[in-house]
Amino acid sequence: MSETTTAESAERRVRRRQSRRELIVLAAVEVFREMGLEKATLEAVGERVGLSKASLYYYVRSKEELLGHVVVHVVRAQEEALARVLDAGGPEERLRAFCHSHVRIICTDPVGRVSAQVALSGIRDDVVRRPLHEYMSRLESILRDGVAAGVFRDMDLRIAQHSIIATLNAVPLWFSPEGRLSLDEVAAQVSGLLVDGMLAKR
Amino acid sequence: MSETTTAESAERRVRRRQSRRELIVLAAVEVFREMGLEKATLEAVGERVGLSKASLYYYVRSKEELLGHVVVHVVRAQEEALARVLDAGGPEERLRAFCHSHVRIICTDPVGRVSAQVALSGIRDDVVRRPLHEYMSRLESILRDGVAAGVFRDMDLRIAQHSIIATLNAVPLWFSPEGRLSLDEVAAQVSGLLVDGMLAKR
Repeated sequence: MSETTTAESAERRVRRRQSRRELIVLAAVEVFREMGLEKATLEAVGERVGLSKASLYYYVRSKEELLGHVVVHVVRAQEEALARVLDAGGPEERLRAFCHSHVRIICTDPVGRVSAQVALSGIRDDVVRRPLHEYMSRLESILRDGVAAGVFRDMDLRIAQHSIIATLNAVPLWFSPEGRLSLDEVAAQVSGLLVDGMLAKR
Repeated sequence: MSETTTAESAERRVRRRQSRRELIVLAAVEVFREMGLEKATLEAVGERVGLSKASLYYYVRSKEELLGHVVVHVVRAQEEALARVLDAGGPEERLRAFCHSHVRIICTDPVGRVSAQVALSGIRDDVVRRPLHEYMSRLESILRDGVAAGVFRDMDLRIAQHSIIATLNAVPLWFSPEGRLSLDEVAAQVSGLLVDGMLAKR
């Protein structure tokens, strides 16, 4: 076998493994929504994608690792959404865009909804919490910039981050698509409440 | 048997039933914390208090009813805490007291912690949600008074209520008693963030 062929097939293997893992994450999201985070099992996910426990184990080693992949999926979706808007403005506009886009993703993407449940659960496993921490640090940098620029008032950044994320992640618990306000109107109002609360008094 | 005796024993029976149910709720809280809301079973609660399933059924008919009792316990604790402070001030002070006291209860009372988990979970059962709705309507009346008095800005009261409650209920997820700030300092900061965000611009 020539070197090129070996490299090509290795690359193809990696790609196939990734796309298989994406499918597993999507199947897991269905299982998590049907059975709940606590009751869901790797076996049930394996059945959904037609893999034995041993074969599934090649792609994912624990339920917690699977939840971690769910969170990562949402972090990526948020990154893509924000890449289109974040350069547009100062800290106030960036925070507003962050909040609005977060609400949209967790209310419209089934993966996002499970990810919000994970964040609001008491799950402490490091493989799940790590991507959440990364996500929080993105929010922290927006807040820090805003405080430094005098746009936001001087506040405890950790408390502000957690309060913002909790408010956003709870939206799917009470938002109804049949309600008086559309998702975008709700997202705008929630973002407004959060952002206005942080603005420095002028 | 004289009428007095019958009335007395009926009263005693009611009292005994109530205090037994209080014990069951406390045992249930331990089971919920150890097994998680989803995995916990009535059987496990019965074992904890030494009651057969049939005997337990005399006091409580479902896990959801038990969760409802947990929430009611916290609603009462909050009522008692607020009765001491609510007359003290206007809408701003009342909202601040509501937030501060809520955080204290759910972070210090094990029943409160489970109740916050219930509120952040997707549990939709009516017997669980009813006391939560009552609690929300108390918060709504504070907000409504504040808007009417021009202390709070004109906002969507439903969105404001849900955002406040979610922020408060999430505090046990990130607060650490070993952290830099005490529980009262954290409660004050979270309350400040929420209340300041609602104040009308002057």
